[in-house]
Amino acid sequence: MRILFIGDVVGQLGLKLVQRYLPELKRQLKPQVTIVNGENIADGKGITEKLYKALLQAGTDVVTLGNHAFRKRDILDFIDDAAKLVRPANFPAGVPGTGYTIVNVNQTKLAVINLQGRIFLDAIDDPFTVADQLLTEILKVTPLVFVDFHGEVTSEKLALAYYLDGRVSAVIGTHTHVQTNDARILPEGTAFLSDVGMTGSYEGILGVKKEPVIHNFLTRLPARFEPIEEGTGQLGACYIDIDEKTGQAKKIKTIRIDRDFPLFEV
Amino acid sequence: MRILFIGDVVGQLGLKLVQRYLPELKRQLKPQVTIVNGENIADGKGITEKLYKALLQAGTDVVTLGNHAFRKRDILDFIDDAAKLVRPANFPAGVPGTGYTIVNVNQTKLAVINLQGRIFLDAIDDPFTVADQLLTEILKVTPLVFVDFHGEVTSEKLALAYYLDGRVSAVIGTHTHVQTNDARILPEGTAFLSDVGMTGSYEGILGVKKEPVIHNFLTRLPARFEPIEEGTGQLGACYIDIDEKTGQAKKIKTIRIDRDFPLFEV
Amino acid sequence: MRILFIGDVVGQLGLKLVQRYLPELKRQLKPQVTIVNGENIADGKGITEKLYKALLQAGTDVVTLGNHAFRKRDILDFIDDAAKLVRPANFPAGVPGTGYTIVNVNQTKLAVINLQGRIFLDAIDDPFTVADQLLTEILKVTPLVFVDFHGEVTSEKLALAYYLDGRVSAVIGTHTHVQTNDARILPEGTAFLSDVGMTGSYEGILGVKKEPVIHNFLTRLPARFEPIEEGTGQLGACYIDIDEKTGQAKKIKTIRIDRDFPLFEV
Amino acid sequence: MRILFIGDVVGQLGLKLVQRYLPELKRQLKPQVTIVNGENIADGKGITEKLYKALLQAGTDVVTLGNHAFRKRDILDFIDDAAKLVRPANFPAGVPGTGYTIVNVNQTKLAVINLQGRIFLDAIDDPFTVADQLLTEILKVTPLVFVDFHGEVTSEKLALAYYLDGRVSAVIGTHTHVQTNDARILPEGTAFLSDVGMTGSYEGILGVKKEPVIHNFLTRLPARFEPIEEGTGQLGACYIDIDEKTGQAKKIKTIRIDRDFPLFEV
Ligand SMILES: [Fe+2]
Ligand SMILES: [Fe+2]
Ligand SMILES: [Fe+2]
Ligand SMILES: [Fe+2]
Ligand SMILES: [Fe+2]
Ligand SMILES: [Fe+2]
Ligand SMILES: [Fe+2]
Ligand SMILES: [Fe+2]
Repeated sequence: MRILFIGDVVGQLGLKLVQRYLPELKRQLKPQVTIVNGENIADGKGITEKLYKALLQAGTDVVTLGNHAFRKRDILDFIDDAAKLVRPANFPAGVPGTGYTIVNVNQTKLAVINLQGRIFLDAIDDPFTVADQLLTEILKVTPLVFVDFHGEVTSEKLALAYYLDGRVSAVIGTHTHVQTNDARILPEGTAFLSDVGMTGSYEGILGVKKEPVIHNFLTRLPARFEPIEEGTGQLGACYIDIDEKTGQAKKIKTIRIDRDFPLFEV
Repeated sequence: MRILFIGDVVGQLGLKLVQRYLPELKRQLKPQVTIVNGENIADGKGITEKLYKALLQAGTDVVTLGNHAFRKRDILDFIDDAAKLVRPANFPAGVPGTGYTIVNVNQTKLAVINLQGRIFLDAIDDPFTVADQLLTEILKVTPLVFVDFHGEVTSEKLALAYYLDGRVSAVIGTHTHVQTNDARILPEGTAFLSDVGMTGSYEGILGVKKEPVIHNFLTRLPARFEPIEEGTGQLGACYIDIDEKTGQAKKIKTIRIDRDFPLFEV
Repeated sequence: MRILFIGDVVGQLGLKLVQRYLPELKRQLKPQVTIVNGENIADGKGITEKLYKALLQAGTDVVTLGNHAFRKRDILDFIDDAAKLVRPANFPAGVPGTGYTIVNVNQTKLAVINLQGRIFLDAIDDPFTVADQLLTEILKVTPLVFVDFHGEVTSEKLALAYYLDGRVSAVIGTHTHVQTNDARILPEGTAFLSDVGMTGSYEGILGVKKEPVIHNFLTRLPARFEPIEEGTGQLGACYIDIDEKTGQAKKIKTIRIDRDFPLFEV
Repeated sequence: MRILFIGDVVGQLGLKLVQRYLPELKRQLKPQVTIVNGENIADGKGITEKLYKALLQAGTDVVTLGNHAFRKRDILDFIDDAAKLVRPANFPAGVPGTGYTIVNVNQTKLAVINLQGRIFLDAIDDPFTVADQLLTEILKVTPLVFVDFHGEVTSEKLALAYYLDGRVSAVIGTHTHVQTNDARILPEGTAFLSDVGMTGSYEGILGVKKEPVIHNFLTRLPARFEPIEEGTGQLGACYIDIDEKTGQAKKIKTIRIDRDFPLFEV
């Protein structure tokens, strides 16, 4: 099974990039499943039902989230009915939504888990322990497990990946909005990438206008960070090939589409 | 002018990798200047005079540091005489050592600045303002300026790079120990890379043994993190080509040497 | 000279408490100068011109601020003309407003400085160094210096107080909204109190409604924190007696007015 | 039942202060139970078996801990046999030691729980949820429950206290080492105090020498913080009177013993 994963989609421009490049990526790469992190699609923070559906319509099978999951209150109205939307599984008990979903792909099933790191992020439940608990359920159903680990620091991402090595097919990081160059298969067969990068403007800072960010660093005055909605874009992604019998990853490759790396180089 | 920059060298294994691969990298790439971040060379945290000299002897022209600069007290004994050792320039006034140095390369001069971010790191002086101050001096001497920006978060790194765009030749990040895949030339001619990655073990977590790191995440009990000193290694680096007249970057390329990407693919 | 200092005034209820109790406090304590921290007066975060003027009209001589100083954008319209409004002096250069002011009291002058800590707060300029710089100017004018040190952690507050001991008349903490029980005169004559406490509702959590705060801790979902604007209140304050010749503090006493400690016990 | 609670005992001087003042406090206040926070007794960080026993011998019934609980590795050798030693209950599963203990006092039983906050401290398990779980067990045995909540920020302390209001007898904060002046009985009968303060030197900063702390703030260079082991001391404490039938608190009073507030004023 080949999984295509696209990193944090920022704003309308991010959505447009998915709509524009996903068909071409599918033609070239022929993934069976496409997963997209959508935590920044609504004005840079959060998601709405309309945008969730737009992602599905663009060809996405599952939408993952992160620390901005609940920024738009609209999510509370539809998350419990959104079968293909997962928010970090280690949010405390009682929080709406689900932390994983299972996708049927021909005769096989793929579990998609969303987890969030705790270093320099909110103190939610322990992602290591929650992963253990979820895997007790999931591994009865399928050995194919994809984890979007939304986190800030590299040590936590690598630690979770090694901790889950051999038990899941892939641990792919999101949140920093910058793709890392460390894709590899860990010793027990788990594909790993610290961060897949983002999808949105190529011009600003992580998808938002650069002037307010720089002004905020210079003055520490409150600032409003707005996504850049036009101009040249970037798409950060990766694909992973998984052995459908064992769930082990066989290959992982990063994809970077932008002015400097046009699609044709994929 | 071509600059070769090698990221955070961790422990004895990191030093060995520099000793082994730097000659070959020089033969292939023919850089005029080699800069190495050495903040983790002494047991994973800090640097000693012996190790500083070992880096120079291995072919390094300038050694930069970071948040671990002063972890080994030995540094206080030699830093003020170490002409090719720079620690973050935005440490408060009165801290030993210097924040930049100038290297003579044939007829030209290259300034090497070390700066440190403040997000999720110690509150030292403002790197943006300190950069402004240093450039007032430096730009009288040379337009060729290399900045090692040691920081945790991607937004701060991009913000500083855009802030200095056109005023320095390159802003290259260190500290996360994971190479990013976002090398590019910014609009006004500054080469940028969020993080160049590390040089040391390829097996553990950021150069140190993985079991104590995972145990620490699982229990939050105190842990001792030790560099892995044997086994397979990785070297994270990049090179930048600079126009010696204008100081503008013309090219930036990342280098990753490890089991999956052997040297010959450089 | 006797200084009366009232801690973080939260919302309309906080203002009403100042209006109601300040006249009585003045009658009983006869302070020459009244200083009030107003960073939370506008809806819990920030200040407006109208509310600044209401504080002056209620009998305040100087209004200090803190990390919420610039939360209401209105402040940018009037701060540069507000002679009796000081924001943390260690905000970066270029930020509107001033970090200290001098009040004329009969034949003497009192300098009022506002500083902000950096531990668990934004990385602004170093409060220790900025204090040194300001004192170089101020001590030429007057030895009577009051410092409102707005900070989170006790170690930083005590460290700054000891650092300034003998050079200023008082270092009084704000920001935690809880009055501490450690008022004293340091060895060289500086009055110190880790935190003077807040002025606003006595019922909720630090002046705001308790349900959203608890819900936020339980779920880590985004929350809106609103000041409680009715019901029983509390006023946190202290007074300091200063020798007008030397600037040394002679006495410091905390004041707590609430249901459990009514005014008459002052 | 009257409980006497003494805050973070720092170093040998802290122990000496307990040994010297506890007998006198017992004579005057006649508490049935004495609880002491001992997380800083061993050189300022951690505890050893010898020091734990010294606290018991000095008249302590239960010793609580905090974020420094496991700093001295010696604790791993004796914590599982130390019947009267409790470490924060919300450390992850598998961590040695226990999070609560039950003390027999004549015909009644008092449960003593230790919990730790997560704001600006390590991400351990949720103290709110863990408290719920423990109370399910404990309230079958006794309605008398004392909670030492070891935390940094005032909002988290108040939030937990309100959350547990009416279900426990007292929520008393530790960790900041500065006694707060906000002791009170919450609406449903739980006694609350944000922080009880520390026991150790009165001269330095939170029990340790002040010069290294100030130097560290000025330079951000690594520093060694050592407890002050001689000179004048302070003892921070409080006592709470509980209705033995209902578990509700009837009275809470802070105690501060130091040069400025000698014992006789208790
Ligand atoms: Fe994101
Ligand atoms: Fe995120
Ligand atoms: Fe490093
Ligand atoms: Fe570092
Ligand atoms: Fe405040
Ligand atoms: Fe504040
Ligand atoms: Fe403590
Ligand atoms: Fe503590």
